[in-house]
Amino acid sequence: MPSSADQSTTHPFAGDPVFDLHLGGKMRIQSTVELDGAEVLSLAYTPGVARVCEAIAEDPENTRHYTWVPNTVAVVTDGTAVLGLGDIGAPAAMPVMEGKAVLFKQFGDVDAVPICLDTTDTEEIIETVARLAPSFGGINLEDISAPRCFEIEERLKERLDIPVFHDDQHGTAVVALAALKNALRLTDRDPALTRVVISGAGAAGVAVTRILLEAGIKDIAVTDRQGVLNSERSDLTPVKADLARDTADNFGRKGSLADVMVGADVYIGVSGGTVPEEIVATMADDAIIFGLANPHPEVHPEVAHRHARVVATGRSDFPNQINNVLAFPGIFRGAFDVHATAITEGMKIAAADALADLVGDDLHENLVIPSPFDPRVGPAVATAVAEAARRDGVARR
Amino acid sequence: MPSSADQSTTHPFAGDPVFDLHLGGKMRIQSTVELDGAEVLSLAYTPGVARVCEAIAEDPENTRHYTWVPNTVAVVTDGTAVLGLGDIGAPAAMPVMEGKAVLFKQFGDVDAVPICLDTTDTEEIIETVARLAPSFGGINLEDISAPRCFEIEERLKERLDIPVFHDDQHGTAVVALAALKNALRLTDRDPALTRVVISGAGAAGVAVTRILLEAGIKDIAVTDRQGVLNSERSDLTPVKADLARDTADNFGRKGSLADVMVGADVYIGVSGGTVPEEIVATMADDAIIFGLANPHPEVHPEVAHRHARVVATGRSDFPNQINNVLAFPGIFRGAFDVHATAITEGMKIAAADALADLVGDDLHENLVIPSPFDPRVGPAVATAVAEAARRDGVARR
Repeated sequence: MPSSADQSTTHPFAGDPVFDLHLGGKMRIQSTVELDGAEVLSLAYTPGVARVCEAIAEDPENTRHYTWVPNTVAVVTDGTAVLGLGDIGAPAAMPVMEGKAVLFKQFGDVDAVPICLDTTDTEEIIETVARLAPSFGGINLEDISAPRCFEIEERLKERLDIPVFHDDQHGTAVVALAALKNALRLTDRDPALTRVVISGAGAAGVAVTRILLEAGIKDIAVTDRQGVLNSERSDLTPVKADLARDTADNFGRKGSLADVMVGADVYIGVSGGTVPEEIVATMADDAIIFGLANPHPEVHPEVAHRHARVVATGRSDFPNQINNVLAFPGIFRGAFDVHATAITEGMKIAAADALADLVGDDLHENLVIPSPFDPRVGPAVATAVAEAARRDGVARR
Repeated sequence: MPSSADQSTTHPFAGDPVFDLHLGGKMRIQSTVELDGAEVLSLAYTPGVARVCEAIAEDPENTRHYTWVPNTVAVVTDGTAVLGLGDIGAPAAMPVMEGKAVLFKQFGDVDAVPICLDTTDTEEIIETVARLAPSFGGINLEDISAPRCFEIEERLKERLDIPVFHDDQHGTAVVALAALKNALRLTDRDPALTRVVISGAGAAGVAVTRILLEAGIKDIAVTDRQGVLNSERSDLTPVKADLARDTADNFGRKGSLADVMVGADVYIGVSGGTVPEEIVATMADDAIIFGLANPHPEVHPEVAHRHARVVATGRSDFPNQINNVLAFPGIFRGAFDVHATAITEGMKIAAADALADLVGDDLHENLVIPSPFDPRVGPAVATAVAEAARRDGVARR
């Protein structure tokens, strides 16, 4: 058989370990049946397969027994918000989507298919994903820029009876909440009395804010480049206006990031850029600082440690890494295990609680969230999510 | 890790070998990298992967080195013409598409992703597949009913710079041509002087006719339920009208199937139904009969053998099986090996020639086409197709 992968040792970036590792891509299809004779062919393909088709035509639930669909998620992007690289287009997004797929496999035993779409139009993305839906047990939206990502996710959730999950929003939110819960425990804070500043009102910022509200944190000020989101501003998108009503409006927070950082207990950066040290220095004692921009946290850990007790980043080379891989594989594993029709707020909160609980008595300043390589993570998240799906009435079994 | 597949031994059709084999589906995703530590994660995913994305954004050709795209085909259906079952819908088509995917893997080392679309609208199918195209190295259309399949294939071929192939048309045509070439050799016939009747003017009938014309056979009469396609008829679709001009018109063939079978050298059935024995009996001496409907050939082999020298069917339990799996894995393997931008007529003819040649000196009445399990088939077809792609100027390397 001719070779399937590009096995040439001469390729444009030969010798560079990143490119050498990527040669031929990071994934393959694997058959679970060996078609080594006429008999197995007659079971797996014609004529036998016709009876499986007929059984599904008669009762679509049979899809869940006799196809790979219920364990398979489409990882869908339009290439507009890839990592920190921005709008690099569909083809260039593929290495990240393949990476996501192998993370799904490794940490959740979920089969994931990367789909990079040649359109950035909201309606076209929604229509396309909806048409693909019979092929997949779930949809993981990925690296689609705000504010389109909000509408795309909402409309697909309404339309489809399978889980739809925008990882840049909810994966980040789940892991940030887990780490924050432990940081609040460590610093002996009551969530309802904690003052939080979130810089960034894009996909991650909106979702982090929403999950913190859901988890009982009340006093949140969200900032964008123009300052705190509140209803005195006339320049807000509908998504930001909603957010203002549920956050700063209720505590009269306004002004600039510098204004609201004075006395704040928690800073969560999901914006990029840098917060000057003199602003960081105005936070409350025992402050908590999550600078999640990659590779450059909004507050460098060295600076943050001078003014805060708990510091987290998105980076693997510092303690307390807020890494989505702690969440999405287990969330889909749990959802798929019970054939969930959706991923509810309750399932996300349950995932965050399970993650936070894994730290247990090991809790200290440099361990508010487990390592992605902790083998307990995937199963713990999956179990908690499956139980929450049952509680929320979205489990099909 | 919770189990990914449905491992329950109680399922609706437990104990039935076909359904037992299908439990949990027939395929999985496989990673080619083991993400067992922070270092490999930093190469395969962030931060390392960003450099691969940037390299592709700068030069899209890098997709062909550093992703799985160039070895991956989408197997796309709308569920309207599945096997002999007809329009059973997208979900019920999935077992066939998974079967196709595992055949691609086993016989061509091609990674194939089954896509069952929740639309049967021509424009929507075209738009959807075009939007998916950055994710795949080729498109294999499957089990889409005629006449929509013709327009969908043509328009996608014009629009995309990757191979687009409707297997129900061209896979069948390639294998039928290979078998017919050997049958003509065995019966010492000149293709240019051979009289052929093809019953059925759907996807397979049109494509078989076209490839036979391409291969130098001239006197063909194609029939549908109303009889021979010729320009005297006013009820022809544009596709059938074109076919009439290139076939029966040139030899004044008209009337019913019974009329044109008198003295015919070759009968190829791709229509279903049954040809009465008294009609079969009117064919020329040393006749050639291919009854390709499954599971019921248009002429049962027992009947056919009373009146013909060479008999082929689509069934694995008779000699001379016209099985598409002899063609599509090797065709895509060859096209992918040279990063072809299309599958040309020359590549299809080359595939048929390679298949026919494999029979060589073993040629006899019951061996006009190799077995699908002959290990020489995939590589021979792939090599011939890759060479033809270079000759036809569609190879990118």
